Amino acid sequence: MTNKKPVSAAVIGLGSMGLGIAKSIARRKIPVAGFDVNANAVASLSACGGIAAASAADAAKNRDVVVVVVVNAAQTRSVLFGDNGAAKTMKSGGVVISCATMSPDDARGLERDAEEMGILYLDAPISGGATKATDGQLTVMASGAPEAFDRARPVLDAIAGKVYELGGVAGIGASFKMVNQLLAGVHIAAASEAITFAARLGLDLGKVYEVITASAGNSWMFENRVPHVLDGDYSPRSAVSIFTKDLGIVSDMARREKFPLQVASTALQLFLMTAAAGMERDDDASVARMIAGVTNVALPSPKNES
Amino acid sequence: MTNKKPVSAAVIGLGSMGLGIAKSIARRKIPVAGFDVNANAVASLSACGGIAAASAADAAKNRDVVVVVVVNAAQTRSVLFGDNGAAKTMKSGGVVISCATMSPDDARGLERDAEEMGILYLDAPISGGATKATDGQLTVMASGAPEAFDRARPVLDAIAGKVYELGGVAGIGASFKMVNQLLAGVHIAAASEAITFAARLGLDLGKVYEVITASAGNSWMFENRVPHVLDGDYSPRSAVSIFTKDLGIVSDMARREKFPLQVASTALQLFLMTAAAGMERDDDASVARMIAGVTNVALPSPKNES
Repeated sequence: MTNKKPVSAAVIGLGSMGLGIAKSIARRKIPVAGFDVNANAVASLSACGGIAAASAADAAKNRDVVVVVVVNAAQTRSVLFGDNGAAKTMKSGGVVISCATMSPDDARGLERDAEEMGILYLDAPISGGATKATDGQLTVMASGAPEAFDRARPVLDAIAGKVYELGGVAGIGASFKMVNQLLAGVHIAAASEAITFAARLGLDLGKVYEVITASAGNSWMFENRVPHVLDGDYSPRSAVSIFTKDLGIVSDMARREKFPLQVASTALQLFLMTAAAGMERDDDASVARMIAGVTNVALPSPKNES
Repeated sequence: MTNKKPVSAAVIGLGSMGLGIAKSIARRKIPVAGFDVNANAVASLSACGGIAAASAADAAKNRDVVVVVVVNAAQTRSVLFGDNGAAKTMKSGGVVISCATMSPDDARGLERDAEEMGILYLDAPISGGATKATDGQLTVMASGAPEAFDRARPVLDAIAGKVYELGGVAGIGASFKMVNQLLAGVHIAAASEAITFAARLGLDLGKVYEVITASAGNSWMFENRVPHVLDGDYSPRSAVSIFTKDLGIVSDMARREKFPLQVASTALQLFLMTAAAGMERDDDASVARMIAGVTNVALPSPKNES
């Protein structure tokens, strides 16, 4: 029955992911308001059928489903429970879909605080990038109470190609996302190391890409990121700072669990070196550029200098 | 013209890869002799249409194409140029297809020595495993003189689904293979770290496999090796010792080039720890079992204890 009721939604955080999510919701004729600290982002929302709001509280007012698409746990906490936060104004019994990558402990803390205010909470990290967000084809790794899934369903259907329902409490979705980020970060670092080493060996890097993507050494990240290196294009599709953050969370979790993560720790150091070298806001394939700089290896230059 | 002449072949080294290669050659009606130090392997060859030989020299006698499928450069050198080696008896102007994973320097040295004896040499590492070998569907990463490719063509066509022609001299094929092994080794180590960490976090490992293989954290190795962990089956499809060897070669190459490989070096240490813990001859997914042992994490037990 719940699924049949019309729902209203808000999206807090209108970066490329949040804006794509808001568009996907609007396309399903679900009324959607949005807020971001960046006024231009809010204007973009108006241009594609959303309702511009002046604060998180304003966007969430009387809404059933509030999707939070900010960078981390601290920002999520702030837009939900801070001054002008969404939790006080959204519909009682409504549901928060929390998309930021964060530690399981942080996700559990947010769920607890939402519960105390009579709000349902879905720990729902996303994967897939801006294009999939706009196409309503994200992958969602979610955990939370069954009634939270039920209440959120029309919005989840609008934004996701695949929703993994991973458990009945917050923290599980976050854990899955962190395991994914551990692997993704290591694979970017390994791809960077391998393509730069191949350049030092004098190999044709285009052929390296062709051979490796057809061989057992392939990874999703090698296939996706090495073209940035081949094009000499380090404009940020996803920035180095995302992985210093995410592998940092992985590292914190592992230390708390007294669990050694030797490969992931080494990858984190490479991202930190890349950030330290001034490339924090550049594309994460910049790890290759950092290694090339240290080792004096020539990587391809941009095809179109502007 | 050369391609149209009937050719004869020999395969030296009849492990699962070499035997599969010999079968694929025999299926094309190319006469194929074979030798291995293991008499049972030689008997298997007879059973599927090959000619059993008493030594490498005996197998190679008057043959046009000699495929060498042994473990490393030293064995390759021994079966070609040692006592009862193939180089002295094979047809003058014939070609060696050298499939062992080795350093580019070793490949160049073997090419030089073959040339001095009037023999062509293809640096031709393979990828794909025993099933693809038997199906004639290996991937070959080859470099060598054009006339070596020309002479070897009927046999390459018999054994490979895809032949990458990567350059005119030995060493290039070997370099591509080493870049692939760098990535493959890192990805096995990362998969082992991630799946064991997921177990520590209390996640459903079958779901972890499902989610990761559909996400940006995926790799060919994660997809291929984690099922061994889920089944608790560490019987060797590919042994830990292969990666202590191959990442060892990568490490030697990098040190000679003064090139730091932080992630690959860390992965090598994990394989060495696994070998040191007594699992050298077990499946390379045993890195996960080693980490689980150290961290006291429970991984799945074998489904069928025998």
